[in-house]
Amino acid sequence: MQHEIKALGTDSASQPLKVLGIHRRALRADDIAMDILYCGICHSDLHQIKNDFGATTYPVVPGHEIVGRVTAVGAEVKQFKVGDYAAVGCIVDSCGECPACSRDLQQFCEVGTTLSFGTPDPISGGMTYGGFSQTYVCREKYTLKMPNFSDMAAAAPLLCAGITVYSPLKHWQAGAGKVVGILGIGGLGHVAIKIARAMGAHVVVFTTSQQKVDDAKRLGAHEAVLSTNNDQMAAFAGRVDIMIDTVSAKHNINQFLNILAIDGTLVLVGIPPEPLEIGAFNVVKGRRSFSGSNIGGIRETQEMLEFCAEHGITADIELINADQINQAFERLEKGDVKYRFVVDMKTLSA
Amino acid sequence: MQHEIKALGTDSASQPLKVLGIHRRALRADDIAMDILYCGICHSDLHQIKNDFGATTYPVVPGHEIVGRVTAVGAEVKQFKVGDYAAVGCIVDSCGECPACSRDLQQFCEVGTTLSFGTPDPISGGMTYGGFSQTYVCREKYTLKMPNFSDMAAAAPLLCAGITVYSPLKHWQAGAGKVVGILGIGGLGHVAIKIARAMGAHVVVFTTSQQKVDDAKRLGAHEAVLSTNNDQMAAFAGRVDIMIDTVSAKHNINQFLNILAIDGTLVLVGIPPEPLEIGAFNVVKGRRSFSGSNIGGIRETQEMLEFCAEHGITADIELINADQINQAFERLEKGDVKYRFVVDMKTLSA
Repeated sequence: MQHEIKALGTDSASQPLKVLGIHRRALRADDIAMDILYCGICHSDLHQIKNDFGATTYPVVPGHEIVGRVTAVGAEVKQFKVGDYAAVGCIVDSCGECPACSRDLQQFCEVGTTLSFGTPDPISGGMTYGGFSQTYVCREKYTLKMPNFSDMAAAAPLLCAGITVYSPLKHWQAGAGKVVGILGIGGLGHVAIKIARAMGAHVVVFTTSQQKVDDAKRLGAHEAVLSTNNDQMAAFAGRVDIMIDTVSAKHNINQFLNILAIDGTLVLVGIPPEPLEIGAFNVVKGRRSFSGSNIGGIRETQEMLEFCAEHGITADIELINADQINQAFERLEKGDVKYRFVVDMKTLSA
Repeated sequence: MQHEIKALGTDSASQPLKVLGIHRRALRADDIAMDILYCGICHSDLHQIKNDFGATTYPVVPGHEIVGRVTAVGAEVKQFKVGDYAAVGCIVDSCGECPACSRDLQQFCEVGTTLSFGTPDPISGGMTYGGFSQTYVCREKYTLKMPNFSDMAAAAPLLCAGITVYSPLKHWQAGAGKVVGILGIGGLGHVAIKIARAMGAHVVVFTTSQQKVDDAKRLGAHEAVLSTNNDQMAAFAGRVDIMIDTVSAKHNINQFLNILAIDGTLVLVGIPPEPLEIGAFNVVKGRRSFSGSNIGGIRETQEMLEFCAEHGITADIELINADQINQAFERLEKGDVKYRFVVDMKTLSA
């Protein structure tokens, strides 16, 4: 038996979010049901609302940085009990059997990854509805356990922003002796600074904003560079082993490829809509790479949560009520947030 | 005491090569002198003659795939004796002390790599003169030993074309269980097919020429794909682990990034003069990389020569006389060679 709950969604790209009634499926044997406590606001929520990639199905209920408390568990559930903190990130299902799933890279499932909102729902039909809502129902296998964070609201953005930067930092082996560059300080970049620092790397922030140069050290960067200053850039020539590029607008990649060390990698985690132009010399010289990374698998997301809890890492957030969500999206569009909005979802029930 | 020798060079981009008189330095304690037997013709010789990168100093004597026979050795030389076959590739000197040189990556020397032609000569002053000449004098440390190839002329192209493809195949671990794509069949591509095959990889050629599809299997490819055929391309989606991209003109990189496997890499070894446009999704999806590689260090070049001799690998060549060199450059410009010209340098003395 499905039950109706309140959610924040919209019927078209031109309308603000409003309260909608949606259904969550009745609990299955391997499902967990949770009351949602907090849900972060990510730039990709905005892309989906605005149909920036041309593939949004309306109505859409965004939200994929979801922290909640378990209210019911199916008969076969072993890892969760009622009252536990639990989380849902970007991925809520995948085939489980393809080569990608077998390597715990569910984000690259060959059959198709089911995302927490806005993709076809293989279990209930229709589209998945996200975390700007009162409850969520998710298969145990795709539900994350929340370690003991002192601030669960500030931990919510780790479910997308955190794993999106943790995964490439891990994959390209950030750690002691490595210089990690963070390009852009926003929702992703500010968490990347903290994680790279905790991994033991020497962390250098590259930004076009003098104000963010100043903020970078507070966030844990060892150094911060104004990327519009040629002298400051030249001082890092050949020094950066891993550059995490969080910029989602078109930008000059070449100036950052050019300061990579031999065998260095620039990893794109934002998705600029226009193609990026790359000069051949910039990769041929120094055997450099221009690479990409997309969130992370379920096992790695759990590992990231444990890592962040152990090192006391959460996002810098602005906690808002449900009725402030449209205002928050407007401010996000202007880059006016330090550094992540999180919605207190209990205020939707009030 | 320097001695004058004959060489093939030109005083300007608009003039054909002609016989010039150049000097080789007198033998130093760690030098080797050789009579040049064979020298391959590489596309980068043409770029230098034509001043395509705007940095050519005239007169220029190209040639950097040099096989010769030792005629004299300096007092401190240990690894060579008079009468030995020896070879000189792209690199004839470097600082020997920077981090790159310490890792035997002399091609990325931070002080500056001295190339076999057309770069400032730190020992004699002036510019280095290449292998389209009667003799060469090179430091022992940068001279290669030639293993026992049955055809020394056909081995000459290994000094540039061979190492340029061997190095990335080795670095990105081509071998059993890996699918290696070779993009373009020319001087580099045809050798890449042979080396990748000998490394144990499954080799797939991608070409726009039906004629080269047919030739690819003769050269050792397991499969060959007409890259203009969408159905043939689609059959390789997600299957290529390492794509060696030998195309030196502007081309659509995205269609080849798109068929890489998870964690796959496209390695550019040609140098298209215009920037290449890359869509962010094509690297973000599948954690793929667009990378580059530039020749290889001295130790790896020696390793490559041993590998090729052991596996009976040489280039498919057209051996020409010194007086045919301008005609050969004209044909090279039109792509009319299967697959490498090599000049019989003894004909310059005749």
